[in-house]
Amino acid sequence: MTRFARSVDALQSSAVRELMKAASNPDMISFSGGMPNPGLFPVEELDEIITKLPLRSKQDGFQYGPTPGYPPLLESLSAYLRSKGLPVEDNGLIVTAGSLQAIHLVTKVFVDPGDAVVTETPCFVGAIPVFRYFQARLRGVPLDADGPALSDLERALEEEKPRLLYLTPYFHNPAGIVYSAERKAAVMNLLKGRGIPLLEDDAYGELYFDEADRPLTLPMKASADPSIPICYTGSFSKIFGPGMRLGWLLGPRDVTAKCELAKQGVDACSSTYTQVLADAFLRGGYLPAYLERLRQAYARRCRIMTDALKALMPEGVKWNAPKGGFYLWLRLPPAMNATALLEIAAAAGAVFVVGRAFDPEGRRDDCLRLSFSHTPEDRIADGVRILAESMARLAGKNRR
Amino acid sequence: MTRFARSVDALQSSAVRELMKAASNPDMISFSGGMPNPGLFPVEELDEIITKLPLRSKQDGFQYGPTPGYPPLLESLSAYLRSKGLPVEDNGLIVTAGSLQAIHLVTKVFVDPGDAVVTETPCFVGAIPVFRYFQARLRGVPLDADGPALSDLERALEEEKPRLLYLTPYFHNPAGIVYSAERKAAVMNLLKGRGIPLLEDDAYGELYFDEADRPLTLPMKASADPSIPICYTGSFSKIFGPGMRLGWLLGPRDVTAKCELAKQGVDACSSTYTQVLADAFLRGGYLPAYLERLRQAYARRCRIMTDALKALMPEGVKWNAPKGGFYLWLRLPPAMNATALLEIAAAAGAVFVVGRAFDPEGRRDDCLRLSFSHTPEDRIADGVRILAESMARLAGKNRR
Repeated sequence: MTRFARSVDALQSSAVRELMKAASNPDMISFSGGMPNPGLFPVEELDEIITKLPLRSKQDGFQYGPTPGYPPLLESLSAYLRSKGLPVEDNGLIVTAGSLQAIHLVTKVFVDPGDAVVTETPCFVGAIPVFRYFQARLRGVPLDADGPALSDLERALEEEKPRLLYLTPYFHNPAGIVYSAERKAAVMNLLKGRGIPLLEDDAYGELYFDEADRPLTLPMKASADPSIPICYTGSFSKIFGPGMRLGWLLGPRDVTAKCELAKQGVDACSSTYTQVLADAFLRGGYLPAYLERLRQAYARRCRIMTDALKALMPEGVKWNAPKGGFYLWLRLPPAMNATALLEIAAAAGAVFVVGRAFDPEGRRDDCLRLSFSHTPEDRIADGVRILAESMARLAGKNRR
Repeated sequence: MTRFARSVDALQSSAVRELMKAASNPDMISFSGGMPNPGLFPVEELDEIITKLPLRSKQDGFQYGPTPGYPPLLESLSAYLRSKGLPVEDNGLIVTAGSLQAIHLVTKVFVDPGDAVVTETPCFVGAIPVFRYFQARLRGVPLDADGPALSDLERALEEEKPRLLYLTPYFHNPAGIVYSAERKAAVMNLLKGRGIPLLEDDAYGELYFDEADRPLTLPMKASADPSIPICYTGSFSKIFGPGMRLGWLLGPRDVTAKCELAKQGVDACSSTYTQVLADAFLRGGYLPAYLERLRQAYARRCRIMTDALKALMPEGVKWNAPKGGFYLWLRLPPAMNATALLEIAAAAGAVFVVGRAFDPEGRRDDCLRLSFSHTPEDRIADGVRILAESMARLAGKNRR
């Protein structure tokens, strides 16, 4: 077996499976899954789309497509990205199996085993297996309410000379924050002249709760000095459905050309069938109204959870006030450990993801992620109550 | 950039794109694509499936699924594989993005850069970018009408001590052959005690033309001594549609567990949406009748092409008589080069894939692949006529 195969432990996967099993138990109140609520999927819109689909498109959907993507989707996706202010004409665009595969392909192009990747702490949990796949060395930079701490970021760039900087500035998973415009400018300033590619992951940017916050979601890719090589990734997962497994990579042409060759060795092309559906979803003009519905629904869920936290959390527990996305990031009092808390809470009927899962260096466990995207509205407060009671029990234990 | 990125050339990809463009020109007679004919896709069956799909399944289709596969599909797929005599209970099973991704995952587990992989010559053209992705060293073993030449295979195993042996025994792409039962037994005998994993790729086994040949398609995985580690891959591409991007890997549990962890770093899961459809296709009992239709259609196309070749090919051109699958493998007379022939034929309106594309060592170019799966029946003879005329022109040039 390879170095990779020897380095990974099958237990990792069974732990994830256990968590998924717990989360899919209908009696369990789950704040753990970073997945949309099934009741919010555009099922009716898709029924309508399929009814109207011409025979030719149906046949296309069954067939192989070009590696960079189904040409009509590349066209409609380009129009969508252009409308977000992105420099589509000056870059290459490829469709990927979720933005996760875009992260995979970019890492394949830039990161040899043992090379450093600088990420955020906490970091998107799905990106960690990708970096592990390539046996990258991870260095995390702590996030504050406005983005990565600048002095830490500068030190990490200088000490590690990373091959890649991975940032998720918009409604961060799990930290729930959005970078301020000033912080984004400062990050770009730090990157100038260093030649370090930035992987800008924008899976949640469309899910702002308040129209007034929309300007915060302007991608760095849209405003950056073109001398900074930015690989911008996005996804249909949060704006259509993750089961479609569709995302994209917009990046310098020399990078996307290499990514395309790498993709030939990964899956040859993404599902043409779901690309046909995504194309019809964009072209049919369904997205704006659907996004409006999602923004309202997630904002309401977030409010319900925040209200419950305010009412029920013991002193010393801290959390952010999300302006969009799926996540609340909870900081526990100093003596409390998230893994110990999860054990008690799971037995009492509520689960979440422990902070350590999001630490690229696998250490810090004083935080936890609460997802409000998936839990039915009328069970959110009950789940928060279970958490509060579990905290009280854990604090009692700790005192003894 | 990484060693991989520096080693691949963007021109490779543009060459493939040029070929696809030529093949998609409606005036071109294309024998190049290894793709099903769009008129043969089960469009009506899928319309019926979608109409009957319960809301819950539709919602499932939008959602993330477990990395190894959508549980109902793992169940229906297991039943299907069991019916083919495969040892499902003693192995792990995961759903992949086409069998190409299964090849990717197995290679990730066994092959470090510079390690040897032994393949057939000619070799499935889609597997070559996968092995290139992992910077494997490729050694080809020539095929005869019954399978790999045994003495060459033995020498290759001894000289290379490969980490993986990759074989596609059933209606080989591009060689068009099916291994004889004796040759399969001899290959397994050769492998005994060596500990070299066999990657057995079975994308076309269902597409035999004559029921009497069905026993030839019994997988080695079904009959092998369990001490030989066989990773068996298959695909929905030829029995449902490649655009679904669904295949599978049935292999020793320690291997599939590692593949599952690797898949977390590739795409997290395959499209749940198309997995829901594939599951309904299997459960609905559509497959047997659909396969019957395909077998008859491809047998007819193969006969039309073979008849045309017999009538039109100049002396010295040789080809096999396929018992199934999509491909005829044509051997040119000694002085004739496939790439030179393609140039003339493409200008005259017919394209194919040159033999060199299938040589894992990238040298031999005295053969070419004709695919009869995609070309409309009434254009096959015209295309063969263009080939014959192009050969005559090339022979004339060569004489001058």
